[in-house]
Amino acid sequence: MHPIVEVSPRDGLQNQPRPVDTRAKLELIDRLIAAGARRIEATSFVNPKRVPQMADADAVMAGVPRDAGVRYAALAANVRGATRAVAAGADELNVVVLATDTFGERNQGAHREQMLETYAQAAAIARADGLAVTLTVGASFGCPFEGEVPVETVRSLVEDALALAPAPDELCLADTIGVGVPAQVLELAAAVRPLLGDSALRFHFHNTRNTGYANAVAALATGPVVLDASAGGIGGCPFAPRATGNIATEDLVYLLDRSGVPTGLDRAALASVAEWMRDELELPVTGQLAAAGDFPAVAV
Amino acid sequence: MHPIVEVSPRDGLQNQPRPVDTRAKLELIDRLIAAGARRIEATSFVNPKRVPQMADADAVMAGVPRDAGVRYAALAANVRGATRAVAAGADELNVVVLATDTFGERNQGAHREQMLETYAQAAAIARADGLAVTLTVGASFGCPFEGEVPVETVRSLVEDALALAPAPDELCLADTIGVGVPAQVLELAAAVRPLLGDSALRFHFHNTRNTGYANAVAALATGPVVLDASAGGIGGCPFAPRATGNIATEDLVYLLDRSGVPTGLDRAALASVAEWMRDELELPVTGQLAAAGDFPAVAV
Repeated sequence: MHPIVEVSPRDGLQNQPRPVDTRAKLELIDRLIAAGARRIEATSFVNPKRVPQMADADAVMAGVPRDAGVRYAALAANVRGATRAVAAGADELNVVVLATDTFGERNQGAHREQMLETYAQAAAIARADGLAVTLTVGASFGCPFEGEVPVETVRSLVEDALALAPAPDELCLADTIGVGVPAQVLELAAAVRPLLGDSALRFHFHNTRNTGYANAVAALATGPVVLDASAGGIGGCPFAPRATGNIATEDLVYLLDRSGVPTGLDRAALASVAEWMRDELELPVTGQLAAAGDFPAVAV
Repeated sequence: MHPIVEVSPRDGLQNQPRPVDTRAKLELIDRLIAAGARRIEATSFVNPKRVPQMADADAVMAGVPRDAGVRYAALAANVRGATRAVAAGADELNVVVLATDTFGERNQGAHREQMLETYAQAAAIARADGLAVTLTVGASFGCPFEGEVPVETVRSLVEDALALAPAPDELCLADTIGVGVPAQVLELAAAVRPLLGDSALRFHFHNTRNTGYANAVAALATGPVVLDASAGGIGGCPFAPRATGNIATEDLVYLLDRSGVPTGLDRAALASVAEWMRDELELPVTGQLAAAGDFPAVAV
């Protein structure tokens, strides 16, 4: 069974200009669970002035169903966020550092060493309370400010991060602005896998330039990976100009199902979630399965 | 240099509900040539009652620049179309057969043996005049009427087709309705490559369910291939319900450029063609490079 992290409630919503209320977010999470999602990035404990859509992080975490066999992750960028995530009952903490100093300073007001130090502090808080810890390296495939990000920049950052205490349970390489190509996926995986030890490898792709699904397939070819996806293909980064659209969970599951890779997710149910997002929440759905129809066609 | 066939003037336009006049088609071809295209599927010699957008096939072929080092292909489904293509001065003839009898009967009023016989007659006419011949097997990845198409169905059709006289210079496996996944690309390539002899292998992908670019990458991994792409990602099949969008040339070239695979095409120029299609021809552009911007960003 191939592991997928559903990120629509967090990355999918964080940059939407239209406010989505807490009730709708919880209904989204319920619908995702009904479609088979068992690992959900539910919200982000960040500055509500910078990411207003995530201002209800505590309320979302207070409202999610706790008896559904689902692990809920929350994102944080600093110690304050980690503390809030622990208090809110997150099962996992996802701490983001940026691959480049320029993006780090614009996004988090911190350069590389400061971000790593913040990671270590936040991770220690989470681990002390029993949360699993993911370290996400944002902009691993390219930076909106510095341009190309050399593989060695990512590799050395990962090496330094894995040497910190506590080491993350999982390392996530994120194509925050949707510029990555499959050749980069292969290069980055080859560069970081030897460093990982017991940590899992996860990838986060946006389909901004139509490379996201090819990147996901490339990632799967490198060995065991966890993949992020967002129902409806909604999503973006508020600090990355023109970054839009995570890969859509329903389209990824279509690809994997028909390739014989089980995911535990129900693509028809996910396509219905995408239709609901489009019709009821008026969100910009980029996943195509709902519009194109499934294949082979379901008999009517 | 990786070979790409530009199909926007044919597959890109054939199903557009808004008429595109001959002058605009010739301007499109000029713009594609300026962006580096050297192999262009320019038009289709088919029944204008069934495909009105291609009613000006003779005029298009009469108007293309002949001194640009470009090879022009024309599509035909029967002897009449092949004869017209030869008379119009096409450099290549692309003859389509369908992988399933049901699609063949709906699209061309012919079943498998009839389509193969038609191929042989049309190919003989083209070859006698010195045209290169492509045999396209439509619906190789799935049929809108019969559903899944077994690999063996395609393999045996290709085997029979390659035994005909004349054998095609090139075999194209087409995902006519955009349902294919990378695992199918690998299976189909493995099944047909041993049959090919001197014939080249070509793939035609639609991105209808967001698998098209991943399929293209999978095809490249199987060995030498030719890939079809359509500037702006426009395109569809008038006989395949809801089939929309070839893979966009500019997005494919972005992926290949940044993977170190040269194509001879200028992705910035192609993105400009896509913008022109969108703004001047009011065509539904699905390629994303023009909207998202190139990366690394061009200094302004």
